[in-house]
Amino acid sequence: MIGPVRVVGTGLLGTSIGLGLRARGIEVILADASPTNLSIAIDYGAGRAALTGDRPQLIVVCVPPDVTAEIVARELESFPDAIVTDVASVKLAPLAELRARGADVSRYIGSHPLAGRERGGPLAGRADLFLGRPWVVAAHDGISYQQATAIDDLILDLGATLVEMSPEDHDRSVALVSHVPQVVSTLMARRLTDAPAASLNLAGQGLRDVTRVAASDPELWVQILGANAAPVREILVAYRDDLDRFIEALAEPAAPGARRRVAEELAGGNAGVSRLPGKHGHDRRFVSLTVMVDDTPGQIARLLNEIGALGVNVEDLRLEHSPGAELGLAEISVLPEAVTRLTEELAARGWRIAG
Amino acid sequence: MIGPVRVVGTGLLGTSIGLGLRARGIEVILADASPTNLSIAIDYGAGRAALTGDRPQLIVVCVPPDVTAEIVARELESFPDAIVTDVASVKLAPLAELRARGADVSRYIGSHPLAGRERGGPLAGRADLFLGRPWVVAAHDGISYQQATAIDDLILDLGATLVEMSPEDHDRSVALVSHVPQVVSTLMARRLTDAPAASLNLAGQGLRDVTRVAASDPELWVQILGANAAPVREILVAYRDDLDRFIEALAEPAAPGARRRVAEELAGGNAGVSRLPGKHGHDRRFVSLTVMVDDTPGQIARLLNEIGALGVNVEDLRLEHSPGAELGLAEISVLPEAVTRLTEELAARGWRIAG
Repeated sequence: MIGPVRVVGTGLLGTSIGLGLRARGIEVILADASPTNLSIAIDYGAGRAALTGDRPQLIVVCVPPDVTAEIVARELESFPDAIVTDVASVKLAPLAELRARGADVSRYIGSHPLAGRERGGPLAGRADLFLGRPWVVAAHDGISYQQATAIDDLILDLGATLVEMSPEDHDRSVALVSHVPQVVSTLMARRLTDAPAASLNLAGQGLRDVTRVAASDPELWVQILGANAAPVREILVAYRDDLDRFIEALAEPAAPGARRRVAEELAGGNAGVSRLPGKHGHDRRFVSLTVMVDDTPGQIARLLNEIGALGVNVEDLRLEHSPGAELGLAEISVLPEAVTRLTEELAARGWRIAG
Repeated sequence: MIGPVRVVGTGLLGTSIGLGLRARGIEVILADASPTNLSIAIDYGAGRAALTGDRPQLIVVCVPPDVTAEIVARELESFPDAIVTDVASVKLAPLAELRARGADVSRYIGSHPLAGRERGGPLAGRADLFLGRPWVVAAHDGISYQQATAIDDLILDLGATLVEMSPEDHDRSVALVSHVPQVVSTLMARRLTDAPAASLNLAGQGLRDVTRVAASDPELWVQILGANAAPVREILVAYRDDLDRFIEALAEPAAPGARRRVAEELAGGNAGVSRLPGKHGHDRRFVSLTVMVDDTPGQIARLLNEIGALGVNVEDLRLEHSPGAELGLAEISVLPEAVTRLTEELAARGWRIAG
């Protein structure tokens, strides 16, 4: 177990780190330039305010990429015995800036938890945000992650999986699996801005999935894309080459070979998506069942009361309300061992189970 | 209620239509070129085999787009009293081909249920597949949907929402909300085919969402994209223009104006995705408030009971449950006119409102 951890920046990631460490009984010291965010995070149970004389063993800087190097440098100076890490989505740029600032990088080791949500801020924080997620430790020439065992402990304590990677490999990897998908999604969503509402009413899950991350914070993403421009650009250029071929094939869909070329691109997409590990990103710990509920007041409360009376704990609940439909769908997540009995008992009580 | 319905093609859509109609007690006659698929669909409860002398009132052709017109023409000829519809994802191409074949289009009215799953085949069929989903009826000059009341009944019986649209508007709309997202997703997934496994291990929900539809059946999509090539191509060209600007801005991310251009694209993406109706947390018809709830059984039910007692209908509810935190967050969507009173009344009853 690690000693006191100082978390600088109490947004989504900082607050989640605080909540996760506090749940393991670890002392967490919180700091934030915004007194409002700081007091929310403290009230939320993510840690305590900083005190004079604090001697943190580890400092985790959870601030936007643009100011990461500046804050890391300040923390390295203020706490000369501490190891300092950060959680920014790019790793080469902050390291280069730290070196340019003449910071003591022998105590800095960059890291990046691959976890996030669309919503930001302390109230979006969750102790289990990092559970089962990769957490890259991007050691540079001046330090190895074995020198910084506190980071190892941090990652294990939060239930994440440590992945060692050079800063270069990290930045290339996230360009592919995170930054380019963000651009692709954004550009798709851009096409919706002046579309007729009647067209958008036909949207299904496919469009929603493709454009979901386009709702992310533009300010943060300007920083990320600016700091990782070269690898992102390289992949986008390759993407555009494929797109050019697609557009060309559609110009004369009946021309010889046009169908084959489209089919090859589609099959290539199949092959690419099949390489992604773990088919579903859904929470593996729970299974869900969907119950149809009439669109009248009190129905959900009645359902939850009956589930509670059966002694089953609802881990997560999501209500789908389709415009125009008489029915809502309540998707209820429960522990796997409860689902069969719950399904039977609810059906016996007249609830319609959709699947 | 409609009379006997003949469903031709017992894949996902045909079987789901059969199951949904059977659940309403409507007689369903099934036909399929594949005896295997047909017998699976019959065993599954989607309907009965065709008999000599069947007099269906309505025929629903659920075959791949490439052969839709051929089968519709055959059905129009075989059953001279029946109204014939189809469910293909494109509407202009089949109509043009039917006219070219000299078919009696005064009894044909194209339609398209906006529903589907990644999995195909009769065993993927679900009686509730169309529940709350839009179902476009694309009347042509020779027929209005009021002439074809059986189609109205079909759509209502399956719980879908009837949307009237010209074949042209339909094809342009689905190019935007379905066909272009398919291409965008496919091209992103293509980039994964030769990526290092270590990079793919960092993939999160964002990449999974963007590439989910890339797993769709290439054969079906070659047909769809070929049949709707012009509108799809037009949108892809506009998409490529934006992509070009993005790539240019990333070539010199520190150049004057580069950041602003990237920020504008990202904000445009925000604006586009916010226009999607019925999206969780973004539904413009409702506003949401977040209530903190203790992590004890029965709290949500108590909250919903009190909201119900206030006469307020919960349109949508999402429960955030963070194992490490002492609190859950219930995000409740209500009609805008109810939110002020509800916030006050809940606060007066001791609930903590988070925002």
